[in-house]
This record gives sequence, structure tokens and C-alpha cells, in this order.
Amino acid sequence: MSLLNLVLQSAEANDPLHKTISCFAINQIASATPPRPHAFSLWSPVAKPAAPDQQGPVCDYTSWPGLTDRSFSGRHLRPAAQSEIDALPSNASCDPAAGQLGPVTALFQRTQMQTGRSSVLFSYFAQWFTDSFLRTSSTDRRKNTSNHEIDLCQIYGLTEDTTRVLRSMQGGKLSSQIVEGEEYPDTLFEPVPGDGLRPKARYASLPYVASGQIDTILKQQRVPAERKARLYATGLERGNSSIGYAAMSTLFLREHNRLCEGLSAAHPDWDDERLFQTARLINIAMLLRIVIEDYINHIAGHKLFVFDNSYAERQNWYRTNWMAVEFDLLYRWHGLVPDTVDVGGKKYEPSEFQSNNALLEQLGVAALLDGASNEAAGKIGLFNTPHFLLWAECQSVKMGRDFRLQGFNAYRERFSLPRLTDWDQLTSDALVKDSLKSLYRDIDQLELVVGLLAEQARDGALFGSLMTTMVAVDAFTQALTNPLLSTHVYNADTLTDYGLAQIDATPSLQALAARNLKPGQQARISFDR
Amino acid sequence: MSLLNLVLQSAEANDPLHKTISCFAINQIASATPPRPHAFSLWSPVAKPAAPDQQGPVCDYTSWPGLTDRSFSGRHLRPAAQSEIDALPSNASCDPAAGQLGPVTALFQRTQMQTGRSSVLFSYFAQWFTDSFLRTSSTDRRKNTSNHEIDLCQIYGLTEDTTRVLRSMQGGKLSSQIVEGEEYPDTLFEPVPGDGLRPKARYASLPYVASGQIDTILKQQRVPAERKARLYATGLERGNSSIGYAAMSTLFLREHNRLCEGLSAAHPDWDDERLFQTARLINIAMLLRIVIEDYINHIAGHKLFVFDNSYAERQNWYRTNWMAVEFDLLYRWHGLVPDTVDVGGKKYEPSEFQSNNALLEQLGVAALLDGASNEAAGKIGLFNTPHFLLWAECQSVKMGRDFRLQGFNAYRERFSLPRLTDWDQLTSDALVKDSLKSLYRDIDQLELVVGLLAEQARDGALFGSLMTTMVAVDAFTQALTNPLLSTHVYNADTLTDYGLAQIDATPSLQALAARNLKPGQQARISFDR
Repeated sequence: MSLLNLVLQSAEANDPLHKTISCFAINQIASATPPRPHAFSLWSPVAKPAAPDQQGPVCDYTSWPGLTDRSFSGRHLRPAAQSEIDALPSNASCDPAAGQLGPVTALFQRTQMQTGRSSVLFSYFAQWFTDSFLRTSSTDRRKNTSNHEIDLCQIYGLTEDTTRVLRSMQGGKLSSQIVEGEEYPDTLFEPVPGDGLRPKARYASLPYVASGQIDTILKQQRVPAERKARLYATGLERGNSSIGYAAMSTLFLREHNRLCEGLSAAHPDWDDERLFQTARLINIAMLLRIVIEDYINHIAGHKLFVFDNSYAERQNWYRTNWMAVEFDLLYRWHGLVPDTVDVGGKKYEPSEFQSNNALLEQLGVAALLDGASNEAAGKIGLFNTPHFLLWAECQSVKMGRDFRLQGFNAYRERFSLPRLTDWDQLTSDALVKDSLKSLYRDIDQLELVVGLLAEQARDGALFGSLMTTMVAVDAFTQALTNPLLSTHVYNADTLTDYGLAQIDATPSLQALAARNLKPGQQARISFDR
Repeated sequence: MSLLNLVLQSAEANDPLHKTISCFAINQIASATPPRPHAFSLWSPVAKPAAPDQQGPVCDYTSWPGLTDRSFSGRHLRPAAQSEIDALPSNASCDPAAGQLGPVTALFQRTQMQTGRSSVLFSYFAQWFTDSFLRTSSTDRRKNTSNHEIDLCQIYGLTEDTTRVLRSMQGGKLSSQIVEGEEYPDTLFEPVPGDGLRPKARYASLPYVASGQIDTILKQQRVPAERKARLYATGLERGNSSIGYAAMSTLFLREHNRLCEGLSAAHPDWDDERLFQTARLINIAMLLRIVIEDYINHIAGHKLFVFDNSYAERQNWYRTNWMAVEFDLLYRWHGLVPDTVDVGGKKYEPSEFQSNNALLEQLGVAALLDGASNEAAGKIGLFNTPHFLLWAECQSVKMGRDFRLQGFNAYRERFSLPRLTDWDQLTSDALVKDSLKSLYRDIDQLELVVGLLAEQARDGALFGSLMTTMVAVDAFTQALTNPLLSTHVYNADTLTDYGLAQIDATPSLQALAARNLKPGQQARISFDR
């Protein structure tokens, strides 16, 4: 990464060259690995497994459905031999609910929270953002239920049918409600005369309502009954999972409805449909800009990368989007989650934030986001996962093995990084090093999901070089390939002059939020704590 | 096209440079128009129209579903204003069944068949080939029901569920039957004890059987009842529409099953699934080679274009496949269809070839293809559509207008050709010129579906320069972008050394057919008559 660091430093010293340097750096990163389509995916010729967490199945050869069926996750590297997987240290006893971790999961367990340079807001955004495209099916882990695009499905849904249900069909706006003078998504349920709650009739056809999935999720999360009344109607089944997530969707919903008013003023003859469709495009473009200039630049630790669609289409890495299983597994940054969050001087447990929109409405969006921006998130790495998320680490380790992912060093090679030959090259952290040494034969045996978190962050990065490279490759090659950013599409004909000006004025989440807070309220909104 | 012609000539004189010149020519052609994604598609915010041939609806602005939902056809150019469509010459009275053509449809009517340099085999192949990707939905003309890929869905079906139904699940092979010592697809129906026919139980779940679509098609085509017993189980609902089509599917089915035997010999440990999946990939690659080196070279009139996957991925035109409505409308080459076909000294009417597999089996594949290769197809142009297809021309004209396609000159400009300013530039054919002049105000008013066929073919081309350019653009940018041809996929790991050698030995349909005819039989198989 020395070349990249050199580039990063010269960029900060040299603003007028920003675009050129950003373009050069992005091309370097995006070319670190062979482009899509990958020869392998999680497609396999077997009907879905009996249980979601059952072994594989895994296909060891290239096939037409494997090359074309994007309902299955892609994979960057072909499967490892089963014998390699069988030789890994056993983690079979993992059952955190019963107080048993298994020796590999124990590598994740937090004893004392380690903090990094990110704010809790960064963790809210990361969770909310990735939930739109890293969508492992709850019934078949081979599948990804997303559209493989950054498409704001958190507020618009995954299909046009869902979108239509979430729209007010008036002035282009999404359905919403006003609580204490602030706009929020509409509530999903209504009281049944006499007793209990039922989904509002207009939301009965939402996929996660019609299938009963929402009830399963509420049960799994042990959501207290009184919170159900305030759940929002959103695009995705996990849209209420935390109030940080709900606050992000709320911000972009407010922005959508604000854009509709601006568009309507500029184009008084437009109908509901055109206002809606155009506001949606502007809103997605804003998110893409925020992802590159605010979110990824935070990860990089430098204000380097620029939202610039001028060169991507001519690059060899400009390919059809297709999320890979490795991207899904690496993006499980549970270390970010703090033990408690301080808002307005009061400490909250993570469980108080789950599906608890009444708390969001009571605190208000400004106070919640301001608090989250000033609170330190945890560091992303081993020995930093809070106890209530250790079950997820069990699952990640199991999934990596069930799908026979190759090891950490094989992926380093695939992403143009040198293989490591010694534990000392991985990290100087004695606890991490000793723990790994006692489990793995040598560094060539280190499995991907562990190695990604074990590698030491250097030079101000948030995590080790393989995680940084893999995140950056998938982020750039799936954001800059968004169809909306095609040079023949991204223009005033599509977005209007008004829309282009709005995007120009939105280099950060702070800029988007500032115009969507309750009048008179202010908040510092930042991924840096 | 003068540069291209220069290139074509030097290529023939200069074989060792073939690849370089082919690459140069293909890049020139593929860059003639802006790449996908197009800002417009046939998506519109209205549920499907009440009747399939009802007006529009048409969306005049860019939207997220318009940019991403490939179940709707793409469009190269935004819709024309309704006022321009309203000003076109009326064709409302068109009803060929009632003997009424309408003045625009009258431009298509054949009086005396004009022949070109193509054989009837070329028309068989064109119909069979395009049926796999130009699949306008029978219930909603905005939609294309294909996978937007050249995927041999004629024999493999559009989904994995269909594929599985068509497989024998033995040795990788597709289900087939032997008739008079020749292999054909399996029959779809079986006799009901007592009376009539019913679909075989194993084919009941084929989409076109389950939906009843096959019965609708048989009724529409007025297929005599006795032909039903010999219909084949194929991947697509129109797989039996003519015996030319059925013969093509039969050839590729035989090739698939032959490849399975070769693969099995080279890899005795492979199971049915791996044999099937690998044979399918090799078969698709062969089709792609035949399309480029045999079919497109026939259209070009020169043996110029080479099956070469080495450069496409680096080009700006390398984009996600998405069939456009203009491509669908221009590919209606009804002029090719002769009034009668001569096989083995006997003349057959086109209706005798419809859904008549008993005739195919009686003639045999070799005799049918040999006869078709020696028989002249009609010329593609105005005044050459046989009477029984004039209803389809009514539909094309109506569809172009319902979706408000821009005019012939607008498309010339879009595809980097100069606008024509005078009828004399269009053609020297007095009948065509005078007929158009009497209908259209000036050449700027000429509508696309008429202009494409009116433009005179020059320099040995099969049709005018706009048709040539549009066909070539869509063919190259959708064939060379096939995921199988990606340089990281197209190799011996994916296709085996055996498979690569088979593809190497297959530069033409003749080569593929020769090894799949009944032993002892021979045929001249050529797109040139």
C-alpha cells in the first residue's frame, strides 16, 4: 500500500489534482483482482439445503447458471479442497447461548472494549448501507436477495410493487408521519379494536409482512411487545433493527420528500409519478456521493476519493454488479458496536436501541446522530466482538468453512498482496499472535474470516491491508458501475438542473442531514468521533 | 461504410492480420452508438395494458426501474413526441385477413418474389437464433422474456427448472428419441388411452405447458391435430414452429449429447451433473463462434470477423446485455421466406413446414438442411413479404408507433450515419421511391421500420447501411459480452482441453452438422445458396 499512501499524501497537499489522483488510485485498487464475472459462484445443482445453516452444498466447477444466476452470491476464488477445511482447528462446540464459544470463536470475544478513530455514527451507517446489498437469504445462505445495486432499497424496497406500497402517490412523496414536529416513516401496524396489533391493510402485501418474516425477526430479537406499535413501514425486513438504522432511513426519506417539493417548484406540470421517479434518482446519486466522499474516505483515513463518473466506463473493471460471498463475510464489523451508547448524557445498552423507534422519536434524529458522532465506536479486529454478537461469529466461521473458502494467504495473492510467511508480518499484537499460533499449523492455514480481522491496521487505516483492499475493490467496482452514473445517463436530462445542484451541495452526510433536521436543531454528524 | 469496406477487402487479401483487422472493425462498429445502459427503456409506471396490442404506455423520462429492470425491453432512443406519431400516414385500416392492408403495410406486400444471395438455411438459422433473445412477451409488448443472453435456451430452456425437466439425468445428456436411426428431441405428448393426447407427466411443469400457452400457439397457427403427436419437448414455446427451427434445435441437441460422450471418455470420474454443465458451456461457445464466423460473416458478405475474445472486455462498449425494442423490430426479415421450398425434388408450401416434425423425420435432417442450403431465400426489403406474414407487418408498424419510435433519420444519426436529405440517397428503386414519396411528407418523416427495409443494399451487403449497422452493433455488443467469453472464464479449467479442441474444430454450422448427421449421410450446409 506504499504507493497508495504516497498518492494519498500528495492528494491532500495538492487539491487541484484531486480528480486525477482519485482516478489513478481507484483504478489501481479496482484492478487488484480479476474483474467479474467470476468463474465460480455459490450456485450448486442441489435444491436448497434442508436447514439454512446446513453444510454447503458447493460446486467445484464452472457452469452456465454459476456464470449468470445472480440470485446466488458470487465468489472471488474457487472452493478449497474439503481436506483443507477438515484440517482446520475444530470450532464445533460453538454455542454462545450455552456459554460455549469454541476455540475459533473465542478469538473474537471482547474482554475490554478497544476503540478506534470511528464514531458510532459510522457503525450505524455501515450497518444500514450494507443491509441493502449484502443480503444473505435467511432460508438459503447461497443466495443474496438484493438487486446487487446501491439502490436505497432501505426506503424504496427491492421491487416496484414494494415501492408503490411505500409511496403516498401524492406529489411524488413517500408515505410518512409527523411526530413531535419531525417526519418519520409511517407506522407498519395498527391497533386491533379490542386487543393487539395488525399490519395496516395497505402494508399487508409488503414481502416481509405477507410472508410472516417480520414476526420471525421480532421473535428472534426478543422485541418487547410494546415496541411493535412504533415499527416503521420500510423497504426491507430489517428496517427497524436498530434506531441508528431507522434514523438513516428517516434522513433519506425526508430528503426524498424535500426533493419532491423542490422538483415540483421547478416543474409545476410534473405528475406524482415523474416527481417520485426523479427524486429517487437524485437521492440515489447523493447516497453514492456520500459513500465515496464521506464513508470511503473515512475508511481510507484521507479525503482523497472524489465522486467522479468520468472514467469508470472505460476501465476493464467496469462490469455487471454481483455481490460475492467473501464481501458479505468480511463486512461483519461487530467490533464497531460499543457496550453502551451515550445520548444526551444518558447511557443506553445496545438492546435498548433494537426496534425501539419510540426512543428515536423521543430523542429526535438530531440528538441521536449528534450523540452517535461524538461516541467512539469499537475497533474492528479480533477480541472485540460484544458478547451478544458472538453467535454471529460462530455463523461466519461456519459459513466460511461450509462454502470451503480458501485461506487468508490465497486471498492476499488474489488481491495482489504478497503472501505472508510469518506471524510477525501479520501483527505485532502478542495476544493475537500467540492465540493464532496455538490454533493454526502455520500462517498458510489461517482462515479468511479470522485473518481479515487479525491483520494489524497500519498507517491510519481502519483495518489490515487485505480487508482494506477487498472492501475498496468491491466498493469502487460496485458503486461506480451504478447504471445511474453512466455518462450517457448522469446529466440534467435525467436528474434536472435542480437535482444536479442538490447533489453538488451534498459532499457529506452532514450536508444531507443539516437540511433535514427539525428547524432550529443542529447536530455534528461525522464518521470521525 | 467505406472504411469498413476497405477493411473487409484488405482482410481477405491478408489472412495473417485477420484477428487485428477483425478487432479493429468490430470496435469501429460497436462504438457507432452510445453504450448501454440506455437512459430509456419500455418500462412505464402503468400496470400492463388491457390488451397486448393496446397503445403504449410510454414513459418519457428516465427512472430507476427503466435503468435496471431488464424484464422490459431497452430502447436506443427516447420516445418521439406524440404529435410526430400522429402526423404519420394512417395505417389504421390494416387487416390482412379481411383483405385490407392499409397504405403502409401495402409497402411490404410481395407481388413477385425477389431473391438475394442467402439460402433458405440462413432464414431457418435467423429465426431459430433470434427466438432465443428477441422474445417480446405475448401478454405485454413492453417486456422481453429472454435472459438477454445467447444461451441456447432453445434446447436448455430459460430457467434451471426447465433445464432439469429436459435432461435425461444420465451421462449429462438431454432427453431424446431415435427415429429411423436419427436422434431427435423427445416428444412432448403421449396418447390418452381411448382418445386424444396429453402432455407427458414429466413435461407438465414446462412453463408453456403448465400455462396452456402451447395450446394457444397451436390454435393460432391452425396446426392440424395429427401433427401434435410429433411435437418435441424443447426449451421454448415456439420450438416446433417450423421444421427448419426444429432441425436447428435437433442439431445442437445431438451435439450436446455427443459432447457428453467425449467428456465422459476424457473424464471417467465425472457425474451426470458435471458432464451436463460442461457440455452446455462448450455447446454455447460453439454457437457463439458459428454466429460470428459463419452467420455474421454471411451478412457482411466477407469472411472477415473472427471469434476472438481477447479484447472485448477492455472496450467501452462491453456492457451488461439488454435487448432493445429497435433490435426486435428490425429483425423481422419476412422477405427471406420463400413461397415454396424444394426438398429432394418436391415443392412444399410454408404451411407444410409448420409444427410438422413427422415431415422432418421423414425427410431426415441431412436432406432438409441440404435442400435449404441450395434453395434461394427471398431478399430482405420492401415489397417482398409473403402474404401469410403481412399481419406481422401490421403489428410491427403499429408497435413502432405505439412506442413512439423516432424516425429513420434520427436513428441514422444515433448510429453515426449521416442523415439522408433526399429520397435518391435512400434507393434507386423507382417503385420504392415513388411509393414512399406518395405517403411521407419528406425523408425526415420516414418511420424506422419502413426505412430499414427501404434503404438499398450496396456493396454486396444483405440490406441497407442502417440495418447493417444496427444489426452489427447489437450482435457484437451482445455476443462478445457473453459471460462465458470473459478471459478469466474462457479456458481449459472451464471448458476442458477436449472442449477447446471441439470449438477449434467448429468454424461453421457445416462443421457442427457434419458430425451429427445419420452415418453415411452428407449435406452441403451453407448460408450462401
